[in-house]
Order: sequence, then C-alpha cells, then structure tokens
Amino acid sequence: MNLKPLADRVIIKMVEAEETTKSGIILTGSAKEKPEVAEVIAVGPGGMVDGKEVVMTVKVGDKVITSKYSGTQVKVEGEEYTIVRQGDILATVE
Amino acid sequence: MNLKPLADRVIIKMVEAEETTKSGIILTGSAKEKPEVAEVIAVGPGGMVDGKEVVMTVKVGDKVITSKYSGTQVKVEGEEYTIVRQGDILATVE
Amino acid sequence: MNLKPLADRVIIKMVEAEETTKSGIILTGSAKEKPEVAEVIAVGPGGMVDGKEVVMTVKVGDKVITSKYSGTQVKVEGEEYTIVRQGDILATVE
Amino acid sequence: MNLKPLADRVIIKMVEAEETTKSGIILTGSAKEKPEVAEVIAVGPGGMVDGKEVVMTVKVGDKVITSKYSGTQVKVEGEEYTIVRQGDILATVE
Amino acid sequence: MNLKPLADRVIIKMVEAEETTKSGIILTGSAKEKPEVAEVIAVGPGGMVDGKEVVMTVKVGDKVITSKYSGTQVKVEGEEYTIVRQGDILATVE
Amino acid sequence: MNLKPLADRVIIKMVEAEETTKSGIILTGSAKEKPEVAEVIAVGPGGMVDGKEVVMTVKVGDKVITSKYSGTQVKVEGEEYTIVRQGDILATVE
Amino acid sequence: MNLKPLADRVIIKMVEAEETTKSGIILTGSAKEKPEVAEVIAVGPGGMVDGKEVVMTVKVGDKVITSKYSGTQVKVEGEEYTIVRQGDILATVE
Repeated sequence: MNLKPLADRVIIKMVEAEETTKSGIILTGSAKEKPEVAEVIAVGPGGMVDGKEVVMTVKVGDKVITSKYSGTQVKVEGEEYTIVRQGDILATVE
Repeated sequence: MNLKPLADRVIIKMVEAEETTKSGIILTGSAKEKPEVAEVIAVGPGGMVDGKEVVMTVKVGDKVITSKYSGTQVKVEGEEYTIVRQGDILATVE
Repeated sequence: MNLKPLADRVIIKMVEAEETTKSGIILTGSAKEKPEVAEVIAVGPGGMVDGKEVVMTVKVGDKVITSKYSGTQVKVEGEEYTIVRQGDILATVE
Repeated sequence: MNLKPLADRVIIKMVEAEETTKSGIILTGSAKEKPEVAEVIAVGPGGMVDGKEVVMTVKVGDKVITSKYSGTQVKVEGEEYTIVRQGDILATVE
Repeated sequence: MNLKPLADRVIIKMVEAEETTKSGIILTGSAKEKPEVAEVIAVGPGGMVDGKEVVMTVKVGDKVITSKYSGTQVKVEGEEYTIVRQGDILATVE
Repeated sequence: MNLKPLADRVIIKMVEAEETTKSGIILTGSAKEKPEVAEVIAVGPGGMVDGKEVVMTVKVGDKVITSKYSGTQVKVEGEEYTIVRQGDILATVE
Repeated sequence: MNLKPLADRVIIKMVEAEETTKSGIILTGSAKEKPEVAEVIAVGPGGMVDGKEVVMTVKVGDKVITSKYSGTQVKVEGEEYTIVRQGDILATVE
C-alpha cells in the first residue's frame, strides 16, 4: 500500500467478519462510538504532535480495537482503510 | 483473555449481580453517568498520555467503581468487557 | 467502610437534616449546582492528576460544602456516599 | 462565621442596599453575569490550583465587585454568603 | 474614582459621542462583539493570571478599542465604567 | 492612521475590488469563514500573549489573506480597517 | 504561484479526477470531514505556533490526504487552492 501516515496517525484495515468470528470477538457499541477490530497497516513516525512528544507503540500487523468515529476512511486499489490517531486505539488483540 | 490495553487504559469486567449483593453495594446513578462495580482484568502500561506522565495505580483483580459512560464495550469469547481510562475509575472496593 | 478513592477523589456522606439544623446552616442552590453539607469519609492519595500535582488538604471527619453536581453516588451497606474531586469542595465548616 | 474556603476560593457577603447607595455605586448587568458589591468575609489559602500557583491578593474586609454567576450561595446562622474563586473578583472598591 | 481592578483587568470609560466624532472614528460591529472607543481609567497590577505572567501595557489615559462583550459594567457616582481584561483591548488610538 | 494594535494584533485594510482583479485573485469562502485579501497597515509588538511568546512575522505593506470572521472592524477618517490576530492570517500574497 | 503560507500552514491543490483514478484512490467521507487527495504547492516556515514548536514535514510536490473541512479555499489566476494547517494532513500518498 502506498499511504504513509503523518505524525501520530496510524492506518488500519478492518478485519473481515470471518476473522472476527475465528478470534471469538464480537463487538457491541453505541451509535456515537463504534468500536471495531482492525489490523495495523502503517504507522506514522510519532514525534512532536501538538507540542507533545508521542512515541508510537503499535506495530504493523497488530490487531487493534479503536474508537472509529474520529477516523477518516480512504479506499486504495479496491481496499478500504481508516486513518486514526494512535490515541484512538484502545487495545491490542493477541 | 487476549486483550492488552494501551497507554492509560484499563479493561474491566462488570461484577455479577450476586457478587454485588454479597459485598452489600447497591449503586444509584443518573442516566448520563452510570456507576458500576467491576473487576480489573488488564491494565495498560501508562507512560506519556497526552503529554502527561501517567502512573498506573490499579492492579489486576481490583474491584473498582467507574464512570461507565466514556468506556467502550467489547465481547471476547462470550464475556463482555469494558475499556476505560484509569482516570475514569473513581475508587477501589475492598 | 470499604471504598478507597483514587487520585484526587474524596468520598463524602451527606450530613443528616437534624445536624444541618443544629449547625445552623441552610443551603440554597440552583438546580444545576446543588451545594450540600457533607462529612469526609475517605480521601484519595492525591499525586499527579491530569499531569498536575495535587496535594490533598481535606481530612477524614471534615465537614465540607461541595458542588454536588459532578459527584457520583454509591450505596454501601445501606449508607449513601458521594465521590467527588477535591476541587469540587468549596469550603470546610468548623 | 465558621466557613473556611479551600484553595483559591473567597467567601463574600453582599453589601446591603443602603450601603450601596451610600458609596454611590449602582450596578447594571446582563442576566448572565450579574455584578454585585460584596465584602470579603474569608479568604482561602491559595497555593496550587489546577496545577497553577495562585497568590491570594484580596483581604478580609475588602469591598469587591464580582461576576456572581459562578458562585455558590450558602446561608449560615441566618446570613447569606457566596463562595467565589478569586479570579471571579473584578475589582476592589475603596 | 474608587475602583481598583485586580490582576489583568482594566477599568475603562466610554468616550462620549462628541469626542468620537472629533477624532474621526466611527465604529461598526456585529451584535456579538461591539467595539467601542474608551479611555483607560485604572489598570490592574498584572502578574500571574491563570498561571501565566501578564505584563500590563496600557496606561491610565490611553484611548482604546475593545471587544466590549466580555466586560462588566458598573456605575460609580453617576459615571458608567466597564471592567475588561487587558487581552480584550485590541488597539490604542493616538 | 492613528491606531496602534496591542500584543499579537494586526490592523489590515481590505484591498479594493479593482486591485483584487489586477492581481488575479478571486476568493471563495463559506459563510462562516470569509477569506479576503488585505494590506497590513499596522503590526502589534508581539511578545507574551496568553502566556506564549509570539514573534510578529508580517510587516506593514504585506498583502495577506485572512480568516475575517474573528476580526473587529473600525472606521477611521473615512477608511475601514479590520483588527485581527496574526494567527488569523493564513498567507501573504506576493 | 504567489501565495506564501504563514506558520504551520500548507497550500494544497486538489488532484484532478483523472489523476485520482490513475493512482487507484477513491475516497469516501462523511459530510462533516471530506477527505481529498491534493498536491502540496507551498509550505509555511513552521516555528512557534500557539506556543508550540512545529517542524514542517511535508514538501512541495507531496501528494497528501487531508481533512478538508477546516481549510480555506482561494482562487489565484484561475486555479483553486486550499490553505490547511499541517496537522490537518493525515497521510502522504506515494
């Protein structure tokens, strides 16, 4: 994929329904903040963001749960991605 | 459980009604901020969050009272969990 | 009581009507911010809260006037308590 | 009076109408921010408030003009008082 | 006049319509932020305000243009004054 | 002109329609944030503004594009000016 | 082009529909935050912005995805540009 996130942003790709079932995770959420399981596709460099040092702790390949509502969705070569801030990632799934 | 919270987040599991009765705690709350008793299942690493150093003070196994409204609910292998920030935990129950 | 407040939180218990009359304090307040007289039951450890050092200055047994609206009410063994931040306590009553 | 304000709070008592007339001050204000002349009855210790050092500059006995809207009113032994933050005091009247 | 402003506050007095015409200044403004020409009557000491050092740069006698909407109006001995923060003063008129 | 801006404020004068056409710039904007081309007439001294050091980078005579919505309009000796903060200036036009 | 952005602002130009198709990127977005692919035309100097040091990391010629909603559109010599803050740029496209 040819998208490189800036600053503390992370590009994630929603995990397909089949995979979600396999890992046994079913998500419930309000209309305002829809949590979803996703895979990390690309990670920004971190550094100074709004005057604060941000160290990136997620890695490409991590499965993550995010608060999707503040992300931006893009479609590249037929695949849908979401760009979120690392701070919007709640947990990793192992 | 296979969820690892990031930053200052804590994964909690609501304590069943029977347990709540046993410890003698009955909660009342407004529609906006529903307090609940929960057990801590996993604790994030803390560290720099929004440019501020956060030290995690809750431990796995702690019974806690939280302001549930800002949490995100997930269901893993049939169990429901909530992901909150440590700052949303009001007190521990001993 | 078996509740231990976290960070800058304080657990208080409303003073009964009889006591309120005894000390001669009658409170008036808007619907939005209802002041009440309460006794401090437990005090959190203070320390870093939202990146700021908080020193706890109220003590168990203090009679206090608070802005109740941001507190959370819990009922333990038949007694009702309120959990507030120290910053929501306006004054002590001697 | 037996109220001791915390942090940067100040307890004030509205000056009676007669006094207001005597000093020649007539106040006009919007419904949202009602300025009033009051006498300082008790002054909190100041110190760190929301992570910022506050030095108290008003003294007991000062006549002050405040933005009353953020204050909390209490009645002690038949007298009405208002608890405000020092930052809500606009000026002293000499 | 017997009003002493606190902190970064400044007491100003609207310049009469005649004077406004003499200096050739006619002001237009929205209902939300009504700019006005005024004379500085008293200047607070400055110092730490909300944790930030404020140096007062306006002087008694300065003619100033302000955003009046956040000020508080008082009437002392038949004269109307407005209390504003120095940060609400946009420019001086020479 | 006899207006001296304070702090990080800048006084600008809208460029006439003819000039706008000459430089080939046509502006479009939403109702909420109307961009306009203007000439810088006076520049404040900068310095500490809201506790942050501001260095003024625009100069008298610069042509600038601003977000006009937060400015205040004044009329001096028949000319209309706008007072904006330097941070509301988006770009210079050369 | 004769526009020089100030501070942390970046001038971008939306990439034509043909180009968008060629790179295989199709964008979806909510009404509130419309993401778009654009080319960087000019980059501000960075430096202290709102009291925080900003280092510019995008370069002229970069293809970027932005949250367009906070930008300001201008038309210069028949071409439409958008002025955004660097922080509103989510990712670069390679």
